[in-house]
Amino acid sequence: MEIAKSKIGMYKRLPSHVGIIPDGNRRWAEKQGMAKKDGYAFGVDPGFELYELCLELGIKEMTFYGFTQDNTKRPVEQRKEFQRACVKAVDMLAAKDAELLVVGNTNSRLFPKELLPFTRRTVFGKGLMRVNFLVNYGWQWDLASALGILSGKEAKNRVGLTDAIASREISRLDLIIRWGGRRRLSGFLPVQSIYADFYIVDEMWPDFRPKHLFEALSWYDGQDVTLGG
Amino acid sequence: MEIAKSKIGMYKRLPSHVGIIPDGNRRWAEKQGMAKKDGYAFGVDPGFELYELCLELGIKEMTFYGFTQDNTKRPVEQRKEFQRACVKAVDMLAAKDAELLVVGNTNSRLFPKELLPFTRRTVFGKGLMRVNFLVNYGWQWDLASALGILSGKEAKNRVGLTDAIASREISRLDLIIRWGGRRRLSGFLPVQSIYADFYIVDEMWPDFRPKHLFEALSWYDGQDVTLGG
Repeated sequence: MEIAKSKIGMYKRLPSHVGIIPDGNRRWAEKQGMAKKDGYAFGVDPGFELYELCLELGIKEMTFYGFTQDNTKRPVEQRKEFQRACVKAVDMLAAKDAELLVVGNTNSRLFPKELLPFTRRTVFGKGLMRVNFLVNYGWQWDLASALGILSGKEAKNRVGLTDAIASREISRLDLIIRWGGRRRLSGFLPVQSIYADFYIVDEMWPDFRPKHLFEALSWYDGQDVTLGG
Repeated sequence: MEIAKSKIGMYKRLPSHVGIIPDGNRRWAEKQGMAKKDGYAFGVDPGFELYELCLELGIKEMTFYGFTQDNTKRPVEQRKEFQRACVKAVDMLAAKDAELLVVGNTNSRLFPKELLPFTRRTVFGKGLMRVNFLVNYGWQWDLASALGILSGKEAKNRVGLTDAIASREISRLDLIIRWGGRRRLSGFLPVQSIYADFYIVDEMWPDFRPKHLFEALSWYDGQDVTLGG
């Protein structure tokens, strides 16, 4: 990816961990005159383009919002399409160099069973980047898992909250980029997002362009890190 | 406030609950050639101007970020000033019409003891608006309180997470407005912020102007509410 190589060294500080909220698939489909459900299939390739760019730049960890338990309330034909898109994305990632971790509520028929093996971190190829993929993820499920763990043995050993949530293997986010113009987290990893900088791209996710990433990184470059201090 | 009256009825939908992150006091002070610590005292009056505007418009609940446990790591002379500003704000609010609730970790000498009575909701005057004030607040403290509650009796009654956090009397946020240009939550009520729309004002908080609020409300007016669905 020559386009990314030209950007290497351009940023004073890169985020270690970038969160991706790929919103706007349905609105994009409607603008194209397609059914809403048909937008999801166009969201897979942009994710790989973005992954390759971040890999070239040296970003160490990415977390992609696949679908949430909230999302599964949508019409069944839409649900099937975003489930299918998630399974396809993992199939394709298996041919790349990444350490994949799928995080989500597996105690549900809405969790695609093809993805069960990847709820333990799995190395593909040279495992060059940690890639986390939220699938049938719910913020309540994530936080409430801490209650289950801490009411058991670990409570006596004073395990902290951040070590007890369901997504505990996912590190703190430095930068979250959301496509589709909305300025909200929509339940995206509430604990890891606490100190993250939040960048909005107005274009819909299937209209992803490399410049969106570069603009987000340039903006991030000018922010300071205070961790609330 | 004539300025707010002219805006009544201009918005198709108003947020019920607005969160306020009044950032930039120290940067503002430095620009004025003052010591950083001296910026906090200039943050009290803007809060009341904003409260009066929101009251006129019919907004039912506001939550103000006072100071956090993270903030108390700052130099002691700064800490004293933001503690003093919080106490002064409550003194002034006592002459208004509001239902005040102060939320924060009171098991610390950093919590101003003058504010202890207000950790139970207190009606001032006609109690026209719910005002929540986060004082020595910490997101870890807030979430971890749920663990304490749920490991006790209530766990058997299956109390939900949102009913068990320390800030459980504060409702879901519809809109969060942050002054000072930074695009991050910095630990502001992670559970109540899950679905909130997030609006950034580049001006520093002591430079508050009514138009900042009106611009935020106009922008919010054009958003949809999906609650993740």
